[in-house]
Amino acid sequence: MQTNPELPASRDKLLFTPGPLTTSLSVKQAMLHDAGSWHFEFNAKVKAIREKLLSIAGLSREADWETILLQGSGTFGVEAVFATCVPSNGKVAVLTNGAYGERMVLMLQHAKIDHVVLRTSEETPNDSAPLEQLLREDKSITHVAIVHCETTTGILNPIEEVGEVTKRHGRFYVVDAMSSFGAIPIDFNTTGIDYLISSANKCLEGVPGFSFVIARRSALTACEGSPRSLSLNLLEQLRGFDKNGQFRYTPPTHSVLAFEQALKELDQEGGVPARGARYRTNHDVLVSGMQQMGFRAYLNPAVQSCIITSFFYPDDPGFSYQDFYRRLSDKGFIIYPGKISQADTFRIGSVGRLFESDMRALLAAIRETIEEMGLDLHADTDALVDRAGLEAAGRS
Amino acid sequence: MQTNPELPASRDKLLFTPGPLTTSLSVKQAMLHDAGSWHFEFNAKVKAIREKLLSIAGLSREADWETILLQGSGTFGVEAVFATCVPSNGKVAVLTNGAYGERMVLMLQHAKIDHVVLRTSEETPNDSAPLEQLLREDKSITHVAIVHCETTTGILNPIEEVGEVTKRHGRFYVVDAMSSFGAIPIDFNTTGIDYLISSANKCLEGVPGFSFVIARRSALTACEGSPRSLSLNLLEQLRGFDKNGQFRYTPPTHSVLAFEQALKELDQEGGVPARGARYRTNHDVLVSGMQQMGFRAYLNPAVQSCIITSFFYPDDPGFSYQDFYRRLSDKGFIIYPGKISQADTFRIGSVGRLFESDMRALLAAIRETIEEMGLDLHADTDALVDRAGLEAAGRS
Repeated sequence: MQTNPELPASRDKLLFTPGPLTTSLSVKQAMLHDAGSWHFEFNAKVKAIREKLLSIAGLSREADWETILLQGSGTFGVEAVFATCVPSNGKVAVLTNGAYGERMVLMLQHAKIDHVVLRTSEETPNDSAPLEQLLREDKSITHVAIVHCETTTGILNPIEEVGEVTKRHGRFYVVDAMSSFGAIPIDFNTTGIDYLISSANKCLEGVPGFSFVIARRSALTACEGSPRSLSLNLLEQLRGFDKNGQFRYTPPTHSVLAFEQALKELDQEGGVPARGARYRTNHDVLVSGMQQMGFRAYLNPAVQSCIITSFFYPDDPGFSYQDFYRRLSDKGFIIYPGKISQADTFRIGSVGRLFESDMRALLAAIRETIEEMGLDLHADTDALVDRAGLEAAGRS
Repeated sequence: MQTNPELPASRDKLLFTPGPLTTSLSVKQAMLHDAGSWHFEFNAKVKAIREKLLSIAGLSREADWETILLQGSGTFGVEAVFATCVPSNGKVAVLTNGAYGERMVLMLQHAKIDHVVLRTSEETPNDSAPLEQLLREDKSITHVAIVHCETTTGILNPIEEVGEVTKRHGRFYVVDAMSSFGAIPIDFNTTGIDYLISSANKCLEGVPGFSFVIARRSALTACEGSPRSLSLNLLEQLRGFDKNGQFRYTPPTHSVLAFEQALKELDQEGGVPARGARYRTNHDVLVSGMQQMGFRAYLNPAVQSCIITSFFYPDDPGFSYQDFYRRLSDKGFIIYPGKISQADTFRIGSVGRLFESDMRALLAAIRETIEEMGLDLHADTDALVDRAGLEAAGRS
C-alpha cells in the first residue's frame, strides 16, 4: 500500500477536494523565498516551467505551441481564452453538463459574445451527435468549448469524439482541462485541441495563484485586433513573455516557485502515468470502501473520473451534511459539498498529495462518524451477505 | 539605527523594487499550510482580513464600506473597478503622469469605455485645475481616476485636491493606491474616495496573489446591470463574500495566509505611521547616500514619495545599466530598471521588509560597484568640500 511519506504531526487537515489541494511540504517550502519578478533568475524559472508544461503535453514550441501563464484562478484563464480569441463576429458552441460548463456560458454572456449551448443532464457525458448537426447547420460558430472533467459530478467528457467533430468542421477547439491535466493523458493530435486551460493547483500539485493556457501559437497570434480586456488578454501576455520573459503584471512569485518544485516532484513520481495511477488507486479504494459502508456513488462507473466522486446523502433522515462535515473536519479530513442541481450529494476528491493510506484513514473516519451520528446506511447487501457467508463458513 | 532582525545567511537577495518585495520569514512561513478554500476556518480568516483592511483605512462596514479581495495582480483590481462600476454610457477622466496612469487608459481602450485623459509630464504632479474646467464643461464624465504614488518615477500625486474637485462636481472617485496604501495615510473623508485599489504585496508586506478594493458599498451595489467580465466583476465578487464568506473562484490560499500574518506584523510595528516612518528613513538614507556618491535623483524632493526613487544614469559613458545591475545582483541586491520615457534612469525602492541597515548595505555595494566599474560620478562637490574641510581641520 502506498503510504503518505509526510508525518501526520507536521500536516494540516487533509483536503479531499477538487482544489486547492493538499501539497507536499517541499512544494510549500519552495515558497520560503522572495524572488524579483523582473530578475533574470526568476525569468529563467518561468521559461523552464512554460517549456516543461509543453513537454508534459507532448508538445513543443518548434511545433507551433506555447504555454501562457496567467495570474488568477483557472476561471480567469478560461475567460482569457474567450476574451482574446473569439472575434467580435465569432460564436461559441458550449457543451455542458455541470457548473463549469455553465460558468463558460456565464462568461460569454458577460462578455456579450454570441454563443449556443448544448446541454446534457449532469450524469450524462457530452454528446458529439447534436454538435455535428449544429456545426453543419450553423456556419457562424467559430469555436467549440468543453470541460474535460466536470468536477460538479466528477464525470469525464469525451474530448476525443467532440474534438474529431469540431476539427472535421474546421472550428477552433477549447478544452477546460482544469482538473484532468497532469493525471489523465491528453493527446493534442487526436483531439485537435487549439486551447487547453489548466491550473497550477490541480493534478500538477502546485499551490493556487495562476492558471495556464497551452495554445497553438498560430491560432493565438491570429487573434490580433479586437481585445476585450487588458488583464485577461492572452495574446498580450504571450507578447510579454516573448519580449523579455516576464509576466506583464506582477506574478504570484511564490506560487511560481512552488510550481517549479511541484513539476520536479511529478517527474520524481514517474510523470503523468504514475500520477494518474496513484489517483486511480485512491479513487478505487475510496469508492469500494464507501460502497461497503452503504454510500451510493452518483455516477455510473463507466463515466466516472478518478479525480472526484459525488456520493448521495444517506437515506437516513438523521443525516445532516453540516454535522457530518464538521465531525470529519474535527478528525482532520476536509471533504467537499455537492454541486449537483437534481440530487443531494457531497463530494470526495482523490487528488493532490494523497495516498492510499490517506484514503483508508478517511474511510475509517467516515465509519466512525456514521457510528457517532447513529446513522443506518443499509450497508451494501451483497457485501453483508458475503460477510455473513464467510462468518457462517467460519462457524461451520 | 534600525537593523534587519533576519540573519543575512537565511535571506534571499534583497529586493529594492516596487514589488514583489522582500517579506519577513514569518510571513513566508505562514504559507507552509494548505487551507481548504471553502472551509469555515479559512473563511473566518478572509473575513478578518477584509475587516482589518477597512480598519487600517479608518473605515467600517457600518459606515457603508466594504473590502473586496480579488485574485490576480493589482492591475486586475483596477480593471475590475472600471469593468464593474462604469456604466455603458459612463465616461472616465484619467489623470496621468506615468506608466500606471497610462495603463488605466489602456484598460479603458480595451474595454471600449469612453474616457478623456489629462496628462502632466512625468516629473509634474497631476493638476486639479484642468480637471475642474473639464468637469464643468463635460457633464458626461461619471468617474475620475488617479494614481496616488506613480512608481514610474516615485512621484506622489495630490489625491486630496483632485478629490475635492471631483466630489464638488458629484463624480465618482477612483484612486490607485497600489504602492502607497499602508505606508502613506489616506483620509477617505477628506479625499472623497469611492474606490481605492491596492495590493497584498506592497506596503502591507504580504506576498503577491491578489489585490483588494476598498469600496463605498452603496456606490458598488448601484452598479448592477451591465457587467463586462465574469472574473473581473467586483460586485459579483462582493455578493460571493456576502453569500458564504468565500471567494467566488479558487483564491490563492497561501497568499491569503501570508497576508494574515503580514497584517499582524503591521500592528506589531505600530501600524501605518510606524511603517511610513521606517520607509521615510530608508528613503532619506538612500537619497543622501546616493547624492554623496554623485547620483542625481530625477524628481524634485517636494514631490518625491518615500516609496521608490528614480536616479539618472551617471554621465560617465562607461556606465552600463546591465553591468551595474548584474554586479549588484551578485552582491545580493536587486534594484529596478527605469520606466521614464524622457530620461535614462534606474529605480531603487525603499519598501518591504527593509531597514536602515539594508539601505546602508546597498549603498556600500553601490560604492564598491562604482569602483569596480571605474566610473567617475563627479561626486557631490559640497560633500567633498565638507570632507576636505574636515580633513584639513583634522590635520591642522
